[in-house]
Amino acid sequence: MRPAFAILFGKIVKIEDEKGIKIGATLELLHNSTLVHDDVIDNADMRRGQKTHNSIWDNTLTVLYGDYMFATAMNIAVELKNIEVLKRIALVSKSLVTGELLQNANAFNFPPKKEVYFEIIKLKTAVLFSACCSLPLIVAERNDLLPLAEKFGEKLGIAFQIVDDCLDFKADLKKLGKPKLIDLPEGKATLPVLLAMENNEEEVIDIVKRVFDSKGEVFEAKDKKRLVNILEKKGYLKKAFSFAKKLISENMEILDNFEDSEHRQTLLKICDFIIDREF
Amino acid sequence: MRPAFAILFGKIVKIEDEKGIKIGATLELLHNSTLVHDDVIDNADMRRGQKTHNSIWDNTLTVLYGDYMFATAMNIAVELKNIEVLKRIALVSKSLVTGELLQNANAFNFPPKKEVYFEIIKLKTAVLFSACCSLPLIVAERNDLLPLAEKFGEKLGIAFQIVDDCLDFKADLKKLGKPKLIDLPEGKATLPVLLAMENNEEEVIDIVKRVFDSKGEVFEAKDKKRLVNILEKKGYLKKAFSFAKKLISENMEILDNFEDSEHRQTLLKICDFIIDREF
Repeated sequence: MRPAFAILFGKIVKIEDEKGIKIGATLELLHNSTLVHDDVIDNADMRRGQKTHNSIWDNTLTVLYGDYMFATAMNIAVELKNIEVLKRIALVSKSLVTGELLQNANAFNFPPKKEVYFEIIKLKTAVLFSACCSLPLIVAERNDLLPLAEKFGEKLGIAFQIVDDCLDFKADLKKLGKPKLIDLPEGKATLPVLLAMENNEEEVIDIVKRVFDSKGEVFEAKDKKRLVNILEKKGYLKKAFSFAKKLISENMEILDNFEDSEHRQTLLKICDFIIDREF
Repeated sequence: MRPAFAILFGKIVKIEDEKGIKIGATLELLHNSTLVHDDVIDNADMRRGQKTHNSIWDNTLTVLYGDYMFATAMNIAVELKNIEVLKRIALVSKSLVTGELLQNANAFNFPPKKEVYFEIIKLKTAVLFSACCSLPLIVAERNDLLPLAEKFGEKLGIAFQIVDDCLDFKADLKKLGKPKLIDLPEGKATLPVLLAMENNEEEVIDIVKRVFDSKGEVFEAKDKKRLVNILEKKGYLKKAFSFAKKLISENMEILDNFEDSEHRQTLLKICDFIIDREF
């Protein structure tokens, strides 16, 4: 989806298609290089449960594969021949690593903090989305609309991540209707959980503490069921989702400032798609 | 040493000191980011012998630390505001990863090939040295001297790596006078060994085969002693070193094309220093 935003904003401000594609490719490669390196990190985590994962050769190739993508991203980026664009891409790359470091430093910290959650989302997701949406405007020298495109991307990124985080607690049809629940045992408390804890939901607080104290080793079936139940029945999932929905609505208003076109309409449809779920 | 070349060439072609420093800092950070990621890889390798190394948390931090250095390198590089410089830095970053991948793909391959050895040296060391020496000339727009500076850096890098590889077989005073001999058990056959094998030294061929067949697990004391003895007594270390020395001499001639100054004299002294050893 990220490259789609670069291409669509490129179309809206009428830069060459090739340039929009290069912006999208660079940022998607940057994003993927961090995902690949996260694999090394996450594999390492999973090893505590599954000792067959994370063999030596896999680690080697994974690290180098991520580095290769990072290097390729930079090689594509320089083809844009635009210093301001390159400067921002370099900042995005730093932001992604900083976000990952912050996430690692805060994993399993109890009690988890909402401001840390939002800071991580900002560094890891919003900055990237913001670059996808705004770099085409720098290429087009549309400084008048630049702050709006940046704001649009930032809100979109935050909303997208919150919805993604909410889905971790929803029934996953691939997994026999059970929710995935992978964030908490990795030491990450996401918005629905944070809202419940903020509201002094004793049971949620106890469950998070047990999972975090055990570094994700212990997450009993009854705790899983109880957690999902509370987040759903007491409206915390709905509340988190509404927060994302509000950001998306604000985003649709931001798009009013851009000339109408089929591309702007596509952006609006993607916004709708992100929040087209029942919570 | 690498940043010193960037700064000295910067002085010779009279660019602002700050720019020479930024070129040096960028390339040194790039180099170090690959070293840090090599640590993940090498730690993984060492694990076969020492199970205490390479704990999960170390891997995580090591990968992210390397990524952070890479990102920082790019952030410093963009401050130079020179597309051609950035293009070359992006190419260097790709070359470093490609070299590491080539090295990993060829580790423990028997028989090891001399052309692969030189290709890895070129990608991992010569390209980096070449950038250190030539990027200041791009900033200074000295296209007349650019190919010479590139050639100088490339030869210097190859020579430096060969000398470094030879030292692996020389008595290391820190280690009670014993040579380190770390390359062969990591699956790397360097120039002195390759020259001996090329000359059909049966004993060397047998030793390399034993070490590589065991993936570096088996490297007996008598084999170590015998290998070092043959490489020294039969002149293979000397021959490899002479090759490096010849490159450095050619480099000193290249410097004749640059205007004389204290900085050019310092470069000549560094060249002397690299080959100032007995083999």
